[in-house]
Amino acid sequence: MTEQHVGTAPGTPDINALLRARYGAAAPALTEPALRDSATLAGLLRHHTVRSFTDAPVSDEAITAMVAAAQSAASSSNLQLWSVVEVRDAATRRALVDEVDTSTFVADAPVILLFVADWARASAIAAAEGESDTAADYLESTLVAFVDAALAAQNAVVAAESLGLGTCYLGSVRNNPERAAELIGLPARAMVAFGLAVGYPDPADTAGIKPRLAPGAVHSRERYSPITDADIAAYDSEIAAYHASQGRPTGWSRAVIRRVKDAAGLNGRDRMRAWLTGRGLPSN
Amino acid sequence: MTEQHVGTAPGTPDINALLRARYGAAAPALTEPALRDSATLAGLLRHHTVRSFTDAPVSDEAITAMVAAAQSAASSSNLQLWSVVEVRDAATRRALVDEVDTSTFVADAPVILLFVADWARASAIAAAEGESDTAADYLESTLVAFVDAALAAQNAVVAAESLGLGTCYLGSVRNNPERAAELIGLPARAMVAFGLAVGYPDPADTAGIKPRLAPGAVHSRERYSPITDADIAAYDSEIAAYHASQGRPTGWSRAVIRRVKDAAGLNGRDRMRAWLTGRGLPSN
Repeated sequence: MTEQHVGTAPGTPDINALLRARYGAAAPALTEPALRDSATLAGLLRHHTVRSFTDAPVSDEAITAMVAAAQSAASSSNLQLWSVVEVRDAATRRALVDEVDTSTFVADAPVILLFVADWARASAIAAAEGESDTAADYLESTLVAFVDAALAAQNAVVAAESLGLGTCYLGSVRNNPERAAELIGLPARAMVAFGLAVGYPDPADTAGIKPRLAPGAVHSRERYSPITDADIAAYDSEIAAYHASQGRPTGWSRAVIRRVKDAAGLNGRDRMRAWLTGRGLPSN
Repeated sequence: MTEQHVGTAPGTPDINALLRARYGAAAPALTEPALRDSATLAGLLRHHTVRSFTDAPVSDEAITAMVAAAQSAASSSNLQLWSVVEVRDAATRRALVDEVDTSTFVADAPVILLFVADWARASAIAAAEGESDTAADYLESTLVAFVDAALAAQNAVVAAESLGLGTCYLGSVRNNPERAAELIGLPARAMVAFGLAVGYPDPADTAGIKPRLAPGAVHSRERYSPITDADIAAYDSEIAAYHASQGRPTGWSRAVIRRVKDAAGLNGRDRMRAWLTGRGLPSN
């Protein structure tokens, strides 16, 4: 419970040290006092994934605060096309691991929030007035619901971390979306988009701030600029050094290639369109 | 420039007043000191969309901070499948309005950030090693890139608001994704997911905290619970009262029905699958 206090006393967050941890040699230096003194900015920069949690309970109020933060995020045309199901039940968490093929730590996390891309609510509202819901059949509608869910979830993450909680996103709930939907009783037109494990970080966990691509490799001005060979080589070095500190010395570009070179890199999720169709979101 | 200071002095944010603004009669009350004293949580709850900006320049450092916050968000398997193109050029902003059919205020916003769902980088990395990139053909890959972009963008929004800036998401850049891609020179396998207008809020703008559905309508425990007629009626009243304060007294459920009842509600975006295919993301 100490980490979140490092940056919250006025004037204390060292934004530039956090930028160096994030970017290594490519780190920009910020000089404007408003930036250097923002505890919120420091909190964002300090993010790291947490997969190992203490037994400390996560209060209902903390989840309420996360949900309120999530609902405060922007929503496309205020349609609010997402829902969240809070899973604490041990049998459901076990089933997520054994039957949906999520990471094993899900069984040990105090709370799993399942974020749902949810057109079921809009369809129910239309049905109650005798109207159709055919717009939900299109890929645009699927995308809007996933984006709405992601904006909401990220606000929940920021709120959680400001309270000393740690989180880990779980794309792995999409390894078996049908079973995931059954476990929490989702209606048609609703699909688990991703999960979020929530709990207080195990102090023994050594995961740190993960280096990212240099800002210039993802941010360009006026026109898109492709990544350069030098960007890739520099980042491969940064990430290999970070991974070595975590006991698994691997680079980045080989991992990218493993993921993109063929459908096997999708771990079965090349069936996503069929799964979405099965969930009532045909994504035409 | 005063608003962001309301909640940042230790102990001053009134979390429960912000919750009442967000939820009306359905507002929960938070009692835990850690929640009530979190300036970051207050900042999240205080969010409102800003579409009208002053002439105050947005510094390069502010954008750098937003990008660093965005890159600090989680990324699926650390693939970092998004990019951002910063548009300040007046002619490009004008073209976004006239040729891409974004909202007219885009021409008057100091900065437009175009967030890109970007498999082009991974494809280039694979091509340099003589490898294929066929996994990018699948809907799962499109979804992961859009979600990655959304998580990143929301962190940028939180950072911006902590610095006194205001933002508005622009799904309207998807009204003509081909022209949007041309304007910023996107390669194949890259698609503008959404835009974000950024600037200092016009003090004359009266937009406030928009009410959302009651927490119980989107958040359930262990099993999904459908929205109730009472939830819908209560929210229709809340949103109608808010909209009346903005001079356009309309409810919510009718707007939801207009959007979902037929393809016309998609404003042409029923072609999204064809557009994505044209951008090299066939979403199979």
